[in-house]
Amino acid sequence: MLFVSSEWRCRPNCLCFVVLHRQGRCIGSDQSWTSFYLTSTNASILDGVIMELQDCSLPLVNSLTPTADADEAFKGADAAMLVGAMPRKPGMERKDLLKANCRIFQAQGKAMDQFAKKTIKVLVVGNPANTNCLIAQRSAPSIPKENFTCLTRLDQNRAQAQIADRLGLPTNKVCDVTIWGNHSTTQYPDALHAKAEIDGVSTPVFAAVKDDAWLTGPFIETVQKRGAAVLAARKLSSAMSAAKAICDHMRDWWFGTQGDKWVSMGVSSDGNTYGIPEGLIYSFPVCIQNKQWTIVQGLEINDFSRKKMDTSAKELAEEKDMAMDFLNA
Amino acid sequence: MLFVSSEWRCRPNCLCFVVLHRQGRCIGSDQSWTSFYLTSTNASILDGVIMELQDCSLPLVNSLTPTADADEAFKGADAAMLVGAMPRKPGMERKDLLKANCRIFQAQGKAMDQFAKKTIKVLVVGNPANTNCLIAQRSAPSIPKENFTCLTRLDQNRAQAQIADRLGLPTNKVCDVTIWGNHSTTQYPDALHAKAEIDGVSTPVFAAVKDDAWLTGPFIETVQKRGAAVLAARKLSSAMSAAKAICDHMRDWWFGTQGDKWVSMGVSSDGNTYGIPEGLIYSFPVCIQNKQWTIVQGLEINDFSRKKMDTSAKELAEEKDMAMDFLNA
Repeated sequence: MLFVSSEWRCRPNCLCFVVLHRQGRCIGSDQSWTSFYLTSTNASILDGVIMELQDCSLPLVNSLTPTADADEAFKGADAAMLVGAMPRKPGMERKDLLKANCRIFQAQGKAMDQFAKKTIKVLVVGNPANTNCLIAQRSAPSIPKENFTCLTRLDQNRAQAQIADRLGLPTNKVCDVTIWGNHSTTQYPDALHAKAEIDGVSTPVFAAVKDDAWLTGPFIETVQKRGAAVLAARKLSSAMSAAKAICDHMRDWWFGTQGDKWVSMGVSSDGNTYGIPEGLIYSFPVCIQNKQWTIVQGLEINDFSRKKMDTSAKELAEEKDMAMDFLNA
Repeated sequence: MLFVSSEWRCRPNCLCFVVLHRQGRCIGSDQSWTSFYLTSTNASILDGVIMELQDCSLPLVNSLTPTADADEAFKGADAAMLVGAMPRKPGMERKDLLKANCRIFQAQGKAMDQFAKKTIKVLVVGNPANTNCLIAQRSAPSIPKENFTCLTRLDQNRAQAQIADRLGLPTNKVCDVTIWGNHSTTQYPDALHAKAEIDGVSTPVFAAVKDDAWLTGPFIETVQKRGAAVLAARKLSSAMSAAKAICDHMRDWWFGTQGDKWVSMGVSSDGNTYGIPEGLIYSFPVCIQNKQWTIVQGLEINDFSRKKMDTSAKELAEEKDMAMDFLNA
């Protein structure tokens, strides 16, 4: 999914979602895609994005269709990345923000419910991602609820990179960092079960880093507040790294995770796992086989983790209550 | 070279060049890189780009170093992509533009001459790319002149995509489109030797398209003026497609072209090939083996092509004369 570009995130008012339609057989290079795009504000800029994608000369892209019609876009869709959401504006209450996004994700959910394949894989990126995902999911009751996920892979990548940097390792030598909860500053980046491969030997990250205070303090805060730090430096929100994380998330969902290594995704809680209330879209550690994610079971949760996990769950429950009020209104 | 991002092109005043230092063995996934960045105007934004790259969690990136010191950046460098140039401003004469860029590319060439490996591979992207490349090359006499190239792969990709679209084929079923000359509106996108693979059979593009008037008229103009068209639509210049083309160019230079298929690159003319004056950086069809490009020989050049190739050569000769005046002043 090379063509999920950073630029789409630079222009949240331009692009609302990307829908992929699979063509041919889904193996290796025989796999090709048709993409649909929706613009909310500016057809000219959307045309420009289409031109850019054409000019990329990507062999797996079969055709490109700009559209402002959600029904057309989601018709027979195999995968959807919902990247556009109403951003928070100065003076806006959280309630107003949720209400505005409720409208957007309800409409997209309804269109998917009616027109998409029942196997569609949905990734919500636009913030508040977890609750936007919940709204889309509830608005598409005919689609299995497991098919709706939200992005916390960016947080995972950030956490992994911070630890790798600290240890002087390439990032792929660090695994099993977990992101729990909401894709917000209450998220809990958890290195307690993470491992680092040092000279070929898998070592617990806490043992390798030898600085518990950092791993339970500044490390967590850096990841929680990374989005704001990038925005402050760039004067633009995370774009390239978000696009990379979207690719990682969808690739792993499609092709599976490796061995017993896990990744983090915002998924529907069944109420029986790690004490997280049922129905919340909550980020958990998952393994993926045959396009099905399963939550990694049996991780030990200490008091420190418990508290942080519950704080994020509480925030999500409040967001959910507000969202359901709007949905049921 | 995944991390050549579209964004760098969005902010030409921010990032001047990217220099890669190879580490370890240059095979498969054991290959890793150290990257240097230079900003001319805004250190904070550069820090933001570094954060974005960290957060991409790219396993092959060994370390990232922001610097404003060309000498430091080019020290021991294996590859350089010179993406930043002075853009044309309203009321600016072509001469003023060349003069400003002369200063930039002379400084970078001198730094490379002194500090880079003699095997460095240089790709100039900033416009006027061909002449900027010439300036850098002339300013680094200790580095083989073959190691300096400029980007016309974006033009090639655009041309290929136009033909593929016309024929309803994936873009990789079209090959051997040639871009001749300057990366400017005098460039000559030439489909006379291009082939399309239709139902497994290689067919001349002219025979497949069956519309000579289009291939010798609107097709050429569309490619020549595509940059302006994208800018008009997006209100931003080509970014994602330029980044993709940079990756294509460097990958093929590093790993070679496939079979007898060729690609287009701006390279130093030896004066003996296709009647192009010696010393110009001119886009030719090339094949690449063992990191060495060679111009594809013996293509038939008809009167139509001759005229267009000479027009572009004439423009480049004028640019060269101006540049040499500045260099020798």
